[in-house]
Amino acid sequence: MNGLCIKNIQRADAQSVQTLARLGVATVHEAQGRLGLMHPEMRPVWRGARIAGSAVTVFAHPGDNWMIHVAVEVVKPGDVLVVACSSENRDGAFGELLATSLKAHGVVGVVLDVGCRDASELTEMKFPVWSRAISAKGTVKETVGSVNVPVVCAGVHVVPGDVVVADDDGVVVVPRANAAAVAKAGVAREDKEAANRKQLIAGKLGLDLYGMRKPLADKGLRTIEGPVDYGTFEPPAK
Amino acid sequence: MNGLCIKNIQRADAQSVQTLARLGVATVHEAQGRLGLMHPEMRPVWRGARIAGSAVTVFAHPGDNWMIHVAVEVVKPGDVLVVACSSENRDGAFGELLATSLKAHGVVGVVLDVGCRDASELTEMKFPVWSRAISAKGTVKETVGSVNVPVVCAGVHVVPGDVVVADDDGVVVVPRANAAAVAKAGVAREDKEAANRKQLIAGKLGLDLYGMRKPLADKGLRTIEGPVDYGTFEPPAK
Amino acid sequence: MNGLCIKNIQRADAQSVQTLARLGVATVHEAQGRLGLMHPEMRPVWRGARIAGSAVTVFAHPGDNWMIHVAVEVVKPGDVLVVACSSENRDGAFGELLATSLKAHGVVGVVLDVGCRDASELTEMKFPVWSRAISAKGTVKETVGSVNVPVVCAGVHVVPGDVVVADDDGVVVVPRANAAAVAKAGVAREDKEAANRKQLIAGKLGLDLYGMRKPLADKGLRTIEGPVDYGTFEPPAK
Amino acid sequence: MNGLCIKNIQRADAQSVQTLARLGVATVHEAQGRLGLMHPEMRPVWRGARIAGSAVTVFAHPGDNWMIHVAVEVVKPGDVLVVACSSENRDGAFGELLATSLKAHGVVGVVLDVGCRDASELTEMKFPVWSRAISAKGTVKETVGSVNVPVVCAGVHVVPGDVVVADDDGVVVVPRANAAAVAKAGVAREDKEAANRKQLIAGKLGLDLYGMRKPLADKGLRTIEGPVDYGTFEPPAK
Amino acid sequence: MNGLCIKNIQRADAQSVQTLARLGVATVHEAQGRLGLMHPEMRPVWRGARIAGSAVTVFAHPGDNWMIHVAVEVVKPGDVLVVACSSENRDGAFGELLATSLKAHGVVGVVLDVGCRDASELTEMKFPVWSRAISAKGTVKETVGSVNVPVVCAGVHVVPGDVVVADDDGVVVVPRANAAAVAKAGVAREDKEAANRKQLIAGKLGLDLYGMRKPLADKGLRTIEGPVDYGTFEPPAK
Amino acid sequence: MNGLCIKNIQRADAQSVQTLARLGVATVHEAQGRLGLMHPEMRPVWRGARIAGSAVTVFAHPGDNWMIHVAVEVVKPGDVLVVACSSENRDGAFGELLATSLKAHGVVGVVLDVGCRDASELTEMKFPVWSRAISAKGTVKETVGSVNVPVVCAGVHVVPGDVVVADDDGVVVVPRANAAAVAKAGVAREDKEAANRKQLIAGKLGLDLYGMRKPLADKGLRTIEGPVDYGTFEPPAK
Repeated sequence: MNGLCIKNIQRADAQSVQTLARLGVATVHEAQGRLGLMHPEMRPVWRGARIAGSAVTVFAHPGDNWMIHVAVEVVKPGDVLVVACSSENRDGAFGELLATSLKAHGVVGVVLDVGCRDASELTEMKFPVWSRAISAKGTVKETVGSVNVPVVCAGVHVVPGDVVVADDDGVVVVPRANAAAVAKAGVAREDKEAANRKQLIAGKLGLDLYGMRKPLADKGLRTIEGPVDYGTFEPPAK
Repeated sequence: MNGLCIKNIQRADAQSVQTLARLGVATVHEAQGRLGLMHPEMRPVWRGARIAGSAVTVFAHPGDNWMIHVAVEVVKPGDVLVVACSSENRDGAFGELLATSLKAHGVVGVVLDVGCRDASELTEMKFPVWSRAISAKGTVKETVGSVNVPVVCAGVHVVPGDVVVADDDGVVVVPRANAAAVAKAGVAREDKEAANRKQLIAGKLGLDLYGMRKPLADKGLRTIEGPVDYGTFEPPAK
Repeated sequence: MNGLCIKNIQRADAQSVQTLARLGVATVHEAQGRLGLMHPEMRPVWRGARIAGSAVTVFAHPGDNWMIHVAVEVVKPGDVLVVACSSENRDGAFGELLATSLKAHGVVGVVLDVGCRDASELTEMKFPVWSRAISAKGTVKETVGSVNVPVVCAGVHVVPGDVVVADDDGVVVVPRANAAAVAKAGVAREDKEAANRKQLIAGKLGLDLYGMRKPLADKGLRTIEGPVDYGTFEPPAK
Repeated sequence: MNGLCIKNIQRADAQSVQTLARLGVATVHEAQGRLGLMHPEMRPVWRGARIAGSAVTVFAHPGDNWMIHVAVEVVKPGDVLVVACSSENRDGAFGELLATSLKAHGVVGVVLDVGCRDASELTEMKFPVWSRAISAKGTVKETVGSVNVPVVCAGVHVVPGDVVVADDDGVVVVPRANAAAVAKAGVAREDKEAANRKQLIAGKLGLDLYGMRKPLADKGLRTIEGPVDYGTFEPPAK
Repeated sequence: MNGLCIKNIQRADAQSVQTLARLGVATVHEAQGRLGLMHPEMRPVWRGARIAGSAVTVFAHPGDNWMIHVAVEVVKPGDVLVVACSSENRDGAFGELLATSLKAHGVVGVVLDVGCRDASELTEMKFPVWSRAISAKGTVKETVGSVNVPVVCAGVHVVPGDVVVADDDGVVVVPRANAAAVAKAGVAREDKEAANRKQLIAGKLGLDLYGMRKPLADKGLRTIEGPVDYGTFEPPAK
Repeated sequence: MNGLCIKNIQRADAQSVQTLARLGVATVHEAQGRLGLMHPEMRPVWRGARIAGSAVTVFAHPGDNWMIHVAVEVVKPGDVLVVACSSENRDGAFGELLATSLKAHGVVGVVLDVGCRDASELTEMKFPVWSRAISAKGTVKETVGSVNVPVVCAGVHVVPGDVVVADDDGVVVVPRANAAAVAKAGVAREDKEAANRKQLIAGKLGLDLYGMRKPLADKGLRTIEGPVDYGTFEPPAK
């Protein structure tokens, strides 16, 4: 779909979004079955933010940021802008002026499958951005793309209104219909991890805590006391 | 040109250099028509510096930093050292001792199309360096290259004496003859952006501020109110 | 060697380890003849740590962190965990819970030829990790690898018990048998560099300090006073 | 969606598939508005094939080809197998034995967002495969993924039953619902290109054939007769 | 180890080498437990060769091929030259003249963790070379490395005398001590694959041939008849 | 310089161009002092061509091939079209129709710092193209660039009229003023290599032919007879 701007979208419920933001990317990714994580090349322009919001999507073309300007008209407070591109491109399609504008309209963060510029200014403004690269390369406003159509951003299919969660670990996408269930599973996981953490701090081995000794033996792990001389060591015949 | 050290070069006027430094990479790049930006893989060793200076160039060979030592003799206060390499290489050709030496001679920063080491020490010294990589890989002093010949560094042709501007957004090069004009255009752009910024903070849309509605419609952007059900949505026929 | 866990290894002497940690990666790498440096893609999750310790090695498979859990049982205080992988992979095989567990057992740092997650938490804990990438991508526990067998990690052959040194410049490996000698050579280098640093601060040229003028001339470097007009300049015939 | 095998899918009509195969990737990509092209890293194992078919999709995990075996049961003659992976991976998940099996069931080609092995044998068999890499790295059969769920493969969202077209230019995906329309548009484009080709062979300039002179002038292209001396040339003021 | 040339090495037995060459990379890699494969970036300069031989190793420096010349003196008929480099480098360290020289001394192929040039001439000579890149970039002869010391080449530890097997699928290394056992295991695997191939050609499913149905069900794979409407499909609750 | 088309350029003399084409990339690159080679990512669309010609340059923008159409008007028989881009981009800016047009005007080859499509058709036409990638990704005609201004293409500064030489080893650029001298030096090199080749075929060692034994010893290469047991070997103290 190209050449289309869909003004209104259905957004995820605020409660789920809030919980998903608190849980963070790693927990959310696990809680929804290890799905939906964007490519690890997507990095924050500055470290320390943790956000979530409903995705307003942009489908842009290499070296062209026109559709981001179009998207500003359709965002609502709490949204996350997600910018995909029709081919691999690292030009700086987003900078401080667009951030100022989006901030004025309540957007909580931006995810770019292209480059970002004004890194210092964005850091100072504390406006959260994740991108493929930091690059001052300017872009044109010549080719029409789309706003609020489904896109693939950094390897993940994003439907407008899906929940985007982003922090120092990257960016994960939760389909809108699953937001509540994933939030719930994430909280359960958090509780379980808190319990495990206590035992690990106390020195308990994961091997015992997670019951891994038997499955490891079943799959053939052999243990040798050692030490061995690695210069001459031959592993025992199976 | 290989095997040559040209001791004296013509430098850019100090006033233009100072203005370009203040403007920063993104503004300067736009002000000279979106030209002269180095590849975005060129990143600062530490964040927060913003410099400009006349380029003293080094043409080196992979794994060899000999010519950087030669260049120390020809730098003047306010210069930026620009190191190109005859093939792709990420070895740590530059570190704290060379930085100490260049600093003693007034150099304001270094741009390396190779690797850099002593990242902690350079950060502590607040000596600004941009490079392709951080790597401790040591280099030899075996093969003669050149100093102050035109080079290609990270995709940009640099003539000795050109102005190099660098900050968290990367590195841009302004030909010496254009320095004053670009500085002037950059200041004008800055003024215009300041005016725009106020309106964007007040919530005005870029679509209106920049007069984009008609050109977008002319190029065929269609708007749909929505929301739509993306599972079954078919875009309207044109 | 696959499917083997060797419980005990010979470790490097504590004195050498301590000295190597203080010297840091760049000095150690030079002191052992510019050998043993891992690929510069290995970067710290947070900047500022400088560690050394005896290597406990893990040989894992892509998308699988099972053997890291096995390794927790064999580490001793002061060790560095080194995780290699049977093919290129950036999944987040290591995070805060494993760090908590390793910390409880005295491990001083982790080196991963794969990805790492929980970047914020590891930064807050000040637990040092070097990895190929930061990625929240979760891993399974399905395929048996090995613990404490020789591995290749980021291009370097690591034998269990070798000394691993890591800081903001990357990661270098010193064979256990050479630890004392390299530490000694590193200290000597440090002393020499301190002496040189003083002269460089005073403005002395490396060309003179290191006696490079004659070798440069012997290899054919020609010096031209300049300035020249680069638009029309032809280098002099040799 | 993970852990699911959907046995039956709706396929594209045979006539459209046949036309799309004949048109080839570049024409189909243009005919559907420059959408749907996979990342150019997707290359044929051998040059010269041109295929199209309905997509049977596999969602696999890094280093694991188990689900490809599951997919063999659900393919039908004329299908193209499309293998996506939950993270970036180049292991050789597909080789001659799987090709033999798929060929026996009428599959016309395979598209892998991972690696491929047995390059010589596949070339000899003339079984067409596109992949991210050629790699002999073996894979395990440990982790359950899915068959015939929507996937993202090399940057493109593929729904089972979509038409996959592949040749020496790469891989493009046409949504099933659009197959007939895109085929029709492609044929029209082909006719137009044939007419243009004749004129271009006769020496007619594209500038005239496509009516580009006025738009170029309107956008500010200035023409200078030349030749100029590039060493001293200054572009005329606008 | 640097600065050393060890003239004589122990070589693998000719019978094992011959068998390993016939088996090829993919089978050998599987037969030794999926170990020893070099990075898939290692590609043949021309397609169609399949070789094996005892490794004579070179440890070189970036942009420098001096040690390859030293190695010519120590090779014996049937050897494979393996060139490692102290850092990542793609310069063309090897070309037609060196190939001519090695051929005159009976070397059967070359494996380069750097670049290769004279691609046309090597293709015409039918001299087999695997490398990271094809590049005409010339190299110097300035820095001493080593010959016949253990090296890491493209991610694999190679000890002089190990068997190197290379074909269109890449390069795999078999430790000399394991050559006979791996050859035997490879032949057994070949026989088993031949039997499987017959059944697969006859249309038998791998699911049945390899007994995968129960393990898949045990790990939770659910099957749905379909077809489903992917626009509205919700996976059944577990 | 942007927005400029310079119609006429000075070309290199036909005799030098013809000689440089015959010599090929590796020899020409060496003959001009190992300078001017483009990045090795520049690969031929099909293997086997060897061309040279005067450069007509295009400066284009990502995803936009408009200026290539402009360039067709200024080419002359024997020219090579060189396409640079204002940022990294792999879109397929060039295909069979443009090749048909350029061929009609006598152009002998094309060098693209972007992508190329219609790989099969170009191969069939035997029209030589070197590019960063093969990609069917279509491009727009929206943004004005330049024709016949100096550009940086794949890391090399190209002035219109410079000689571009390209074959299976890549692409090298010879400044117009140096064409005759480089051609002469290349022929001399060819003669010398022919003499050396004979001796190498006869089994003479490069060590002796090139007089390398003394310089190697002077730089500290130590020779050990061997064989040694690598599991326990310690290199002799220096």
